[in-house]
Amino acid sequence: MHTLLVLTSNKDRPAYLEHLRAAHLPDLEIVESATPAVDLVLGDPVLIRKVLPDLPALKWVQATWAGVEPLLDPALRRDYILTNARGVFGGLMSEYVFGYLLLRERKILQRLEAQQQSRWEPSLTGSLRGKAIGLLGVGSIGAHLAETAAHFGMHVHGYTRASETSPHVERYYHGQDLLAFAAGLDVLVCVLPNTSATRKIVDAPLLAALPPRAIFINAGRGSSVDENALLAALEQDRLAGAVLDVFEQEPLPPEHPLWHTKNLFITSHTAAPGFPRELVGLFVENYLTYFDGKALKYQVNFELGY
Amino acid sequence: MHTLLVLTSNKDRPAYLEHLRAAHLPDLEIVESATPAVDLVLGDPVLIRKVLPDLPALKWVQATWAGVEPLLDPALRRDYILTNARGVFGGLMSEYVFGYLLLRERKILQRLEAQQQSRWEPSLTGSLRGKAIGLLGVGSIGAHLAETAAHFGMHVHGYTRASETSPHVERYYHGQDLLAFAAGLDVLVCVLPNTSATRKIVDAPLLAALPPRAIFINAGRGSSVDENALLAALEQDRLAGAVLDVFEQEPLPPEHPLWHTKNLFITSHTAAPGFPRELVGLFVENYLTYFDGKALKYQVNFELGY
Repeated sequence: MHTLLVLTSNKDRPAYLEHLRAAHLPDLEIVESATPAVDLVLGDPVLIRKVLPDLPALKWVQATWAGVEPLLDPALRRDYILTNARGVFGGLMSEYVFGYLLLRERKILQRLEAQQQSRWEPSLTGSLRGKAIGLLGVGSIGAHLAETAAHFGMHVHGYTRASETSPHVERYYHGQDLLAFAAGLDVLVCVLPNTSATRKIVDAPLLAALPPRAIFINAGRGSSVDENALLAALEQDRLAGAVLDVFEQEPLPPEHPLWHTKNLFITSHTAAPGFPRELVGLFVENYLTYFDGKALKYQVNFELGY
Repeated sequence: MHTLLVLTSNKDRPAYLEHLRAAHLPDLEIVESATPAVDLVLGDPVLIRKVLPDLPALKWVQATWAGVEPLLDPALRRDYILTNARGVFGGLMSEYVFGYLLLRERKILQRLEAQQQSRWEPSLTGSLRGKAIGLLGVGSIGAHLAETAAHFGMHVHGYTRASETSPHVERYYHGQDLLAFAAGLDVLVCVLPNTSATRKIVDAPLLAALPPRAIFINAGRGSSVDENALLAALEQDRLAGAVLDVFEQEPLPPEHPLWHTKNLFITSHTAAPGFPRELVGLFVENYLTYFDGKALKYQVNFELGY
């Protein structure tokens, strides 16, 4: 018998419980608060962090997020298997990134303004085809972005620690080649997790290495970007535009200068929400694997941070 | 020796001539006005129509448009091979259609308004995944849309005269099944050519068969839509939204009510412009085929109109 603690936002909890019960998992009791019997947890890392000391029987945590940094603090216990959410965010991230890229190429806001003035506006559209996109991080999310970009006829470059797994990346860069990777890009997209190696990786030198025509999109973690350097590059037209979904401080405070920075679109950490149905599906698949005594999918390495 | 007449807009002509000359095609003289020696024409159908009587040696016309209705008038000569532009517009049409679909799903305008107010706006995003898209017309453009839709996890339905060529269409409809095709769609996209069979095919009954949550996009020809019926459906919330790139009358007159119809986005026949480089590439490929005495690609059937 296993005891599963479900720890999500109050808003999402009914949906999680409904989908879990509908799965009729064998030998599983579901609880909503920490008890000594709890050996499994499904939930949001920031909520799980608080109850870690109260779970003496803990064996496995399935996070509902891709980023699990709240559980990576070296002061916290690591005597359990931590799996994160993968494979469910790629499609949403592609919708986000390409929604904003097409907004720009297709001049949607400019054409909307013309419509409001009842004005025929036949100016030539741009196109993604033939442009170069660089992906900072090519895990499961980056691989989906790479496939979408290739479908639209873009040239895809990737910067990773070591892996070269996506067939849609034409050229990989690693280690010291970060600035070489940036040169010549039309679009740079960061989908890196928050680790010590990614902190402020998008800094003034990297932004300076991008062509002035380039667009930067951060849909990973706010910690990857030097926000002051980005703000300066945008205000001084050293970068054509940016889209940020994540920030050093969230929610972004009302007085923060990024809200009104030139050529910057801001979204509120909404790029790739976890839908309860899909995350329960991921848990169910992993639970049945666990139940069979096999190795779980998407295990996090506490040292690497992903 | 062949004599090619290039007939495009003044704006595009230098680019066409440059790309043609760069191709160094064998045994080809290029001219810019009608002469008795002209046997080949590359250009815009509406310009070609005017010089048809002045080309006694005409053998082949390569149109730079997908739609060739100016040349289909039964009163005009048909004693030549007419080929249209295909394979070059699919990617642009996908960018157009998915740019506007993602604008809506990702609530881009709503989030932009929040940004202008320095307001964190964490409302849940929509997603294309799992939604149903119906394609009115599945030629080379529709096939590209089908592939893009499938990539984003959509269910793809297609309505065609008879063909069932795209592997990304889950279910095809023909003939009398138009209303059955419309029922259950989240998105209906029309990419039909202008023929007698497609005239006002998007009429009040078809619009009524769509669910009220549906979005309609017309990127084919304005003649396919009963604009009054569409306007009424939008104003009465019987349809959630529409995007029109083409109209019965173009440019759309400033006083036309469509400019300010509820939940309607208007663009100015800019969805899939012909880029000279690509259209010359298509001509070059077909010229070398013609030069070898083989069958040309993309021949138009004057009776069917495509």
